[in-house]
Amino acid sequence: MTQKLLGNISKGFVFVLSAPAGTGKTTLVRMLAQEFPCIYESISSTTRPPRPGEVDGKDYYFLSKKEFEDKIRQGDFLEYAEVFGYYYGTSWAHVLEQQEMGKHVFLVIDTQGAMQLKKKNFSAVYIFLSPPSLEELRERLIKRKTENMKAIEKRLSWAKAEIEMMANYDYHIVNDNLNQTYIVLRSIVIAEEHRVQKKDQ
Amino acid sequence: MTQKLLGNISKGFVFVLSAPAGTGKTTLVRMLAQEFPCIYESISSTTRPPRPGEVDGKDYYFLSKKEFEDKIRQGDFLEYAEVFGYYYGTSWAHVLEQQEMGKHVFLVIDTQGAMQLKKKNFSAVYIFLSPPSLEELRERLIKRKTENMKAIEKRLSWAKAEIEMMANYDYHIVNDNLNQTYIVLRSIVIAEEHRVQKKDQ
Repeated sequence: MTQKLLGNISKGFVFVLSAPAGTGKTTLVRMLAQEFPCIYESISSTTRPPRPGEVDGKDYYFLSKKEFEDKIRQGDFLEYAEVFGYYYGTSWAHVLEQQEMGKHVFLVIDTQGAMQLKKKNFSAVYIFLSPPSLEELRERLIKRKTENMKAIEKRLSWAKAEIEMMANYDYHIVNDNLNQTYIVLRSIVIAEEHRVQKKDQ
Repeated sequence: MTQKLLGNISKGFVFVLSAPAGTGKTTLVRMLAQEFPCIYESISSTTRPPRPGEVDGKDYYFLSKKEFEDKIRQGDFLEYAEVFGYYYGTSWAHVLEQQEMGKHVFLVIDTQGAMQLKKKNFSAVYIFLSPPSLEELRERLIKRKTENMKAIEKRLSWAKAEIEMMANYDYHIVNDNLNQTYIVLRSIVIAEEHRVQKKDQ
């Protein structure tokens, strides 16, 4: 039987993907999941209210503040963060379940969340995606028209800080062109599945 | 300007590729060099006389025994080995020159040579290519118990030697299908160029 390009593993890996908003990270992970059935995009939990069209259990698990804080106390989150007044988190059980099924789980989380995983020595491939320039990011956010200028400025200053976090990641991709970035991201996943597992890791 | 997929670096990396004879390693590196101008296949030095059609400075650097041994003494070789009375080696200056030009240098060398580089803590990406048969045999050994002890012992010791060797490499590709192996090899090079360079490396 011919080996598949990906998915020849019994337990999947976790890929942490961080990027400022508007960098195309969600699109990229969807493209990957579409090409490779063994790639799974983790669904985050959040206390942010759903945007029009967002579906509970598909886009996010929408929780109340109380529900979320209970889960924090119970240690249910691999990582969580408060961003602009809302909680976002990743359920540990949710990720593990997919891994055990041989799926590579993509966590699309911000640098705060990623650094929590790093501190816990959580074994994952850490990928940082950055916009070619902050100016371009601003344009993209304006084009998206979902936020006012004040919110955009706030996000931009956040983005600057995030870029400084890059040194903590394993890979860095400048998202200059979506298709090209896709090839790089795809390459990272394929390469990582072919890494020799070191005994001390 | 749009970034190229590969070659956005000032100094290239070294990729060490080891594989048993007949695994297609030379073809694979030629395919890579053809697709990416920034990939360069290192030319070895040897004391073996040229075969008809072989060109000095293209297939090999053909040296006299004295020349080769002088270079060994001068520390000019990154690695070298003696096979059937002839020397084969990789010139350090030759590799460095290409790296400085921003090329990724591929060293197609055997496990002995690769281990010499490892011992010197030579910074490279180590890739091990193996024929599919070994994998198949290993699976069969695990799943079935129909073989006699002698055959099993023989296969086990082979598998063991191979696995021990493999553990020293960063990546392992089972060459099941040349085109697929090419995609994986290409992915490794693209992924590696996007690795965040750690300060302590």
